[in-house]
Amino acid sequence: MTHMTQDIAAEAPHEQLAELLADDLAAVNQLIRARMASEHAPRIPEVTAHLIEAGGKRIRPMLVLATSRLCRYQGEFHHHLAATVEFIHTATLLHDDVVDESRQRRGRATANLLWDNKSSVLVGDYLFARAFQLMVECGSMRVLDILANASATIAEGEVLQLTTAQNIATTEEQYLRVIRGKTAALFAAATEAGAVLSGAPEDHVEALRVYGDALGVAFQIVDDYLDYGGAGAGIGKNIGDDFREGKVTLPVIRAVAQADAEERAFWIRTIGQGKQAPDDLDHALYLIARHGTLQSTRTEALRWAGAAKAALQAVPDVPVRRMLSDLADYVVARLN
Amino acid sequence: MTHMTQDIAAEAPHEQLAELLADDLAAVNQLIRARMASEHAPRIPEVTAHLIEAGGKRIRPMLVLATSRLCRYQGEFHHHLAATVEFIHTATLLHDDVVDESRQRRGRATANLLWDNKSSVLVGDYLFARAFQLMVECGSMRVLDILANASATIAEGEVLQLTTAQNIATTEEQYLRVIRGKTAALFAAATEAGAVLSGAPEDHVEALRVYGDALGVAFQIVDDYLDYGGAGAGIGKNIGDDFREGKVTLPVIRAVAQADAEERAFWIRTIGQGKQAPDDLDHALYLIARHGTLQSTRTEALRWAGAAKAALQAVPDVPVRRMLSDLADYVVARLN
Repeated sequence: MTHMTQDIAAEAPHEQLAELLADDLAAVNQLIRARMASEHAPRIPEVTAHLIEAGGKRIRPMLVLATSRLCRYQGEFHHHLAATVEFIHTATLLHDDVVDESRQRRGRATANLLWDNKSSVLVGDYLFARAFQLMVECGSMRVLDILANASATIAEGEVLQLTTAQNIATTEEQYLRVIRGKTAALFAAATEAGAVLSGAPEDHVEALRVYGDALGVAFQIVDDYLDYGGAGAGIGKNIGDDFREGKVTLPVIRAVAQADAEERAFWIRTIGQGKQAPDDLDHALYLIARHGTLQSTRTEALRWAGAAKAALQAVPDVPVRRMLSDLADYVVARLN
Repeated sequence: MTHMTQDIAAEAPHEQLAELLADDLAAVNQLIRARMASEHAPRIPEVTAHLIEAGGKRIRPMLVLATSRLCRYQGEFHHHLAATVEFIHTATLLHDDVVDESRQRRGRATANLLWDNKSSVLVGDYLFARAFQLMVECGSMRVLDILANASATIAEGEVLQLTTAQNIATTEEQYLRVIRGKTAALFAAATEAGAVLSGAPEDHVEALRVYGDALGVAFQIVDDYLDYGGAGAGIGKNIGDDFREGKVTLPVIRAVAQADAEERAFWIRTIGQGKQAPDDLDHALYLIARHGTLQSTRTEALRWAGAAKAALQAVPDVPVRRMLSDLADYVVARLN
C-alpha cells in the first residue's frame, strides 16, 4: 500500500517537473541555502531553515524553471529568479505568522509559537531584501518591474484581506483581489518573469503570465473550498479554520448572497461578530450545502484551471508544456 | 520668546536645506501622497498618514535632493528616489512598532497602540513594495543595487539588534553593525544613490557615501547618548528607555567593559535578566558617570561627525556642501 502511494505520487505533475528540472532545482536549493545565511545574525537561518528546508513542493521556483525551460533560456540567472520567488513566498509566510493582539487576547497559546512576532517580521524583511538582491543580479529592469508590481499586489491583497475579515458584505470582486494578492500575483510573476528573462516573444510572455495567474487563482479557490469540505484530515488542513478566523471566502460569500433573514443573522453573529458556539461550524456547513455554494466554488476552481490550460495553447508544444498543463489539473484534483 | 525660537530654528541647517530645496520637497511630498494611496485597501493611507504627514524633518529625502543638487542632476527621478527612501524609512518604523509577545506579557497596554501588529506589518510591506516600484522607475540598475544592499544591511542590523538586546557581552563592533543597520545604511544609500543617479564621478559618489554613513552613525550614537543624558524632556525622548528595554548601547558597553564584579552583577541583573527595581536607572546613570562613558560616547559621536565633514572635502564647494557640513555639526549639537 505504501509502495502504491509512492508510485502514484511519483506520477504527480509536480513530481514529473521536479524530475525534469532536478539539476536546476539542486542549483536553486544551493543558492537558497547560501543566501539565507547571515554571518552576523545567526538567528536568521535558525528562523528560516524550518520553513525553507521543510520540503515544500517548491512550486513557485519550479514555475520559474519550467517557463525558462519552455522558453529555451540559456543563462544561469533563472536560478536567481527561482530563489527570489521562494524567498518572497517565505517572507510572506513569516509575516502572515504575526499574530495581532486581539487574536492573542482570544487566548491563543503563545507558547505554541515557534518564534516571537518581532523575529518573524524582521527575518521576513531580511528574506525580502535578499530576494531583492538576487533579482537585481538578474540584470533585467523588466524582471524587476514585474516583481515590484507583484510585491505591491501581494501587500495590497494582504491588507485588503485584513479589512474583509469578519465583513460579510465582502464582494466576489474583493475576494478575487485578495486571492490574487495572496497567491496568484506571485505565481503570475514567476511565469511572466521566467519568460521575460528568457527573451521570449511577447505573446508567449503574456500567455505564461495568464497561465500563472489563473493557476494561482484556481489553487487558492481550491484551498478555500477544502476549508469547508473535502478530505481535510488527509491534506494537513482542518475543516473550519477559515470559519473560526472569520475569513470571508467564496463558499461563504455565495451562501450569504442567498441567505434568508435568519441565515443572515447567523452569518452576522458567527463571522461578523465572531461569536461562535461549538456547533456553529456544523450549521455553517449545512447552510453552505443547502445553497450548493461548495459545489459552485468547485466549478469556479475548475473554470480557472481550464483558463490556465487554455493559455498554454499559445506556447510551443514541448514536454514541459504538458507538465504545466497537467499541473493545472493536479491543483484542482484536490477537489475530489 | 516664541519668535526667538522660530528665528533660531529657521537657521538650523536642515531648515536651510528645506528652504533651498523647497520646490523639490514639495514635489516629493506630492509623490509620497500619490503613491501612499491604495484604491482597494483604504486602511493603508489611514495607517501611514499619521507617520508620513506627521512632519518629520524629511532628513532622508533631503539627503537625496541635496546630493542630487550638489551633483547637478538634471532629471526628475531624484523625487522618486527621495520618496523611495522616505517609504523605506516609514516601513521600518512600522515594523519596529510590532510588539513581541514577551513585551506584551510584561504588561504593555495594548489599548495604547494605534494599530494592531498585523496592520503594522502588512502596511509596512506595502510601503516597501511601493518604494520598490518607485526605484524601478528611476531606471538605474546601480541605484537598485545600492538600495537592495542597504535593505539587506537594515534587516540584518534589526535582527542583530534583537539578538544583542539583553546581552551585556555585546561588543562595540556588534553595536556599530546594529546602528549601521538601524540608521546609517539608509543615510548612506540616500547620498550614494543621489550621486549615482546624477552621474557623478566615482570619487564624488564614494565621498558622499562615506558622508552619509558617518552622518548616520553620528546621528544614532547621539540618540543613544541622549537616552542616558542631555535635556531629555526637550527632545521628546525619555531618559532610560533603552535601559528599561534592555538595549545594549555604547554608554553601557563601555561601562560594562570597566565594571568591577559588583557592577557586573548589576548589569547582568538589570540588562541581562531584565530584573529592574525603580531606582536601578539612577544607579546605572551613576555607574556610567563614574566611568565617564557618556563623555567618551560624546567624543565618539563628534569623531563620526568630523569624518562626515571631512568626506565632503572631495566634492565641489557649492552652497549645498556647506549646508551638508553644517548638518553634521547640527546632528551632534544635540549633545550639548
